Order: sequence, then structure tokens, then C-alpha cells
Amino acid sequence: MTGRDGGADLTPISEFEPVVILVRPQLAENIGTTARAMANGGLFHLRLVAPRDGWPQERAWHASSGADRILEAATVYETVDDAVADLQRVFATCPRPRHVIKPVMTARGAAAELRIASHHKIRTGILFGPERAGLDNEDMARADTLVRYPLNPNFMSLNLAQAVLVMAYEWYLTEDITAPRDFMTNETHVATKGELENFMSHLLRELDDTGFLRNEQKRPGMIRNLRHFFTRGEVTEQELRTLHGVISELVRARKAQR
Amino acid sequence: MTGRDGGADLTPISEFEPVVILVRPQLAENIGTTARAMANGGLFHLRLVAPRDGWPQERAWHASSGADRILEAATVYETVDDAVADLQRVFATCPRPRHVIKPVMTARGAAAELRIASHHKIRTGILFGPERAGLDNEDMARADTLVRYPLNPNFMSLNLAQAVLVMAYEWYLTEDITAPRDFMTNETHVATKGELENFMSHLLRELDDTGFLRNEQKRPGMIRNLRHFFTRGEVTEQELRTLHGVISELVRARKAQR
Repeated sequence: MTGRDGGADLTPISEFEPVVILVRPQLAENIGTTARAMANGGLFHLRLVAPRDGWPQERAWHASSGADRILEAATVYETVDDAVADLQRVFATCPRPRHVIKPVMTARGAAAELRIASHHKIRTGILFGPERAGLDNEDMARADTLVRYPLNPNFMSLNLAQAVLVMAYEWYLTEDITAPRDFMTNETHVATKGELENFMSHLLRELDDTGFLRNEQKRPGMIRNLRHFFTRGEVTEQELRTLHGVISELVRARKAQR
Repeated sequence: MTGRDGGADLTPISEFEPVVILVRPQLAENIGTTARAMANGGLFHLRLVAPRDGWPQERAWHASSGADRILEAATVYETVDDAVADLQRVFATCPRPRHVIKPVMTARGAAAELRIASHHKIRTGILFGPERAGLDNEDMARADTLVRYPLNPNFMSLNLAQAVLVMAYEWYLTEDITAPRDFMTNETHVATKGELENFMSHLLRELDDTGFLRNEQKRPGMIRNLRHFFTRGEVTEQELRTLHGVISELVRARKAQR
């Protein structure tokens, strides 16, 4: 996971991926954690407008958890106008827009537009305001669209890197095809129905032997319940082998006691 | 936004909302930022399993940005078993599951299941591992389902509060009805088509007066282009008033020059 710079091997896929623009960031540490959050979501392009303590700052590298290459490629601008001059579509994150007349999108909605713009080779950027005050009205007048995250209206306070993470995460998800639910196993496989049936036969044979299923009226229902239970959990072949062993061992112990 | 404890006015909506369970957290600061992230997404119930430095810790309160009530209501357990004993469905976040045979869900998929469980009054929890090592195999064996976030596979490193934020954000979104795109304005309204047409008449009258539209063949196309432009941007009534003024002023200046 480490690249040539001692950091992670991060590279932009294209120059048309969204640019993250930190406007007058105060703490270098937050620039570092922003780079980390960008890396999490596969964003690469970082621009800084008038960072309070100058640039570069070693504390940013310390806070980036290895997202060094994003910091090394970051560029610095004096004004928002300079930072967005080559961009075609600019979003501005803004938790509480006031006195603003502008379309507002959710993070998810904005991410979808950013992805489509990227496919159409349209240059986009997202403005994030300074830690305390956020973007001012002049900054927001440079944006086509505002982005406001749906979050608890009683507690909207996000730190800078968290705000970037939500946007980066939504950006990543626009092309992610992971199923909402999958089955994780490295060393075995989910049992086939034949393997499961083989186990059920083993179990029922031994239960018949003990007389557990002797009530002919209840027998089908009891067997069905057992089958439901063992079918429900996506039992693996490895687990079935263990269960075969459990039954054999219980039987052996019972017979030894006789 | 501040409640009786000096922090934000946060309250659980029901006891069946998911419980965030931090397993052997190391830094009290991360417990505080976790509470903040929970508050962002409207989660309230926090449990701590064997926090390394004991509990309570003042640094947690300092880092929580006012999510005090979540910290004050947090409960401490010695083991994961104790912490999940009353829960019916347990998820475990796990960036890189190994040697694990278990269903795996995305954050979004898990959030949907958590929300449904909450509606059905099923008690749920989400395990988050310690900062460095993450959950161990014994911890994960206590969970029904793993959660793995879709993120840049070359850079999965999330800090604890960021991991909690993604889950809390997805939880919040499961019942959020914000439109992906909306129009934000507090002091005016998007112009009606009648207001827009009134402006177009004003503009065309003055342009006809100057002779700008005198080419009869090109006239319809030019007017259509102008109409497209002024229609595209969801112009507001306030902006139209400004534009009426701009035209009148340009005309006045031109006539004064004659």
C-alpha cells in the first residue's frame, strides 16, 4: 500500500475528476485529514486557497495517514476566483445557506452530477469553507450549485475532513457495484443443497435411531423446522463437516454410555 | 442548539435505534468524536467495551463538539458478550475480513436493515474495533453480519469517528426525504413564466428599438436563444427585477448619449 513517496500509491484516474478546493483552511492538520478522506473515496486533486499558515506544512503530512501524493500534488491559489478559473462547474458545500438564491443538492445528488460531468470531460470542483466560519457569500457566488448534506438538523457540525469524507464516499459510490449484501468466505464455500441434504439425512438417521422423531404426526413438522433452521444461515461446507462431526461424536458418546 | 447540559439537545427517538459499540477504544478523544459523528446522523445509544483509559474521560467531552448527552448516557461493559447480551441483531464493521465465514453488507445495505429492524422493535448494535487493530476474530464471531464500506481499495484507512460517521450518515439517509436537487431561496421566489415573459417582452421591445433583431430570417432563432438562456437558470423574481433595471438603465444611457 506504500508508493514511491513513502505514502500510499494514489493516482488520479483522469484530470476530469472533481477538484477539492479548501478555501482559507486554518489548520494544516485538517488539510492532511482532508487528503486522507479524499484518498478513501478515490479523489486526488486538491487546491488550497490562501491557507492561513502557508504551505507546505509538515503537520499536514503527519495527519494524512499516507495520502502524501495528494498533498504533494496540491496547488495553492490566492483567491477563489483563481482556484476555479479553469473549472466549468463549481459546487459549494454549505450547511446553512442564508440570503442565497441558488440550487441546492444533497451530497448524493451532487456526486451523481460530478460523475456525469467527469464522463463528459467537464472540469468540476467542490468548495469547502474554513473551519469556523464556512464559506462566505462572496465564495458562494462563485458556485453554480450548493451542496447541503442531509444530517440531523439539531447537530450539523462536521469537521472539515468529515465534510470531505462524505462527499468523497458518495463520489466513490457512484461507480461502486458492491452488492448491498454478499457472503464472505475465503477458505470454504456456501454448502450446495446436496451437501446440506446429505447432512440432513445423517441427522435424521441418528434422530430416528434415538426415537426423537417417533411421533408420526409431528414428525414432518419437526423435520421441516430443522430443515428451515439449517437452510436459513447460508451454512458453509466447512460448517457442515463440523456439524457431521458433532452428531457422530454425540452418538458415539451416547452409545459408549450404554 | 444547546441543551440542559451545555451540549446539543440530543435525544433518542426510540430504544430500538442501533447501539454503537466501541470495542476496546484506545483514545478518549476518539470516543468524543464518535459521539459527535453519531449526533450528526441522529444516533444516540453508545456502549463502550473496556475503554483502555477508563471512563469517563474529560477529553471525550472536549472532542464531542457538544454531543455531551450521548457521552453522559454511554454505558461501559467488560466484554463484548456483555455489551451485546440484550441485542437481537449485531453488525460488525470490518474493513478487511479474513478467515471469516459470514454475510457482508455495505454501509448502505446495513443501514436499511437497521432501519427495518428498528421499525420492528428489534434491538440492534454495530461493533467498531479499536483504533489500531480493529475487531479480532472472537469479536466478529459475536456478530450476525459484517459491514464493509465500499471505499478505495488502495486506501481503506478510516479513523474511528469517520467509520462511525459513514454508518450514522447512511442511517440518517434511510428516512431522509430531501430531494437530490432543490432550489434555495429565502427572500424571493423562482419567477413564474408570466414574470419571465414580461421581462422577455421588455428586452425584445428595447432590442427591436435598437435594431438588433432587424434581420427577419435570424430573428426567431435569436429570440429563441435568448429565451433558452433566460429560462435555463431558474431565474428568480428578484433577479428579473434587477435585469429589468439593467435594460432600462442601458437604454437610458444610450438615449442620453444621442
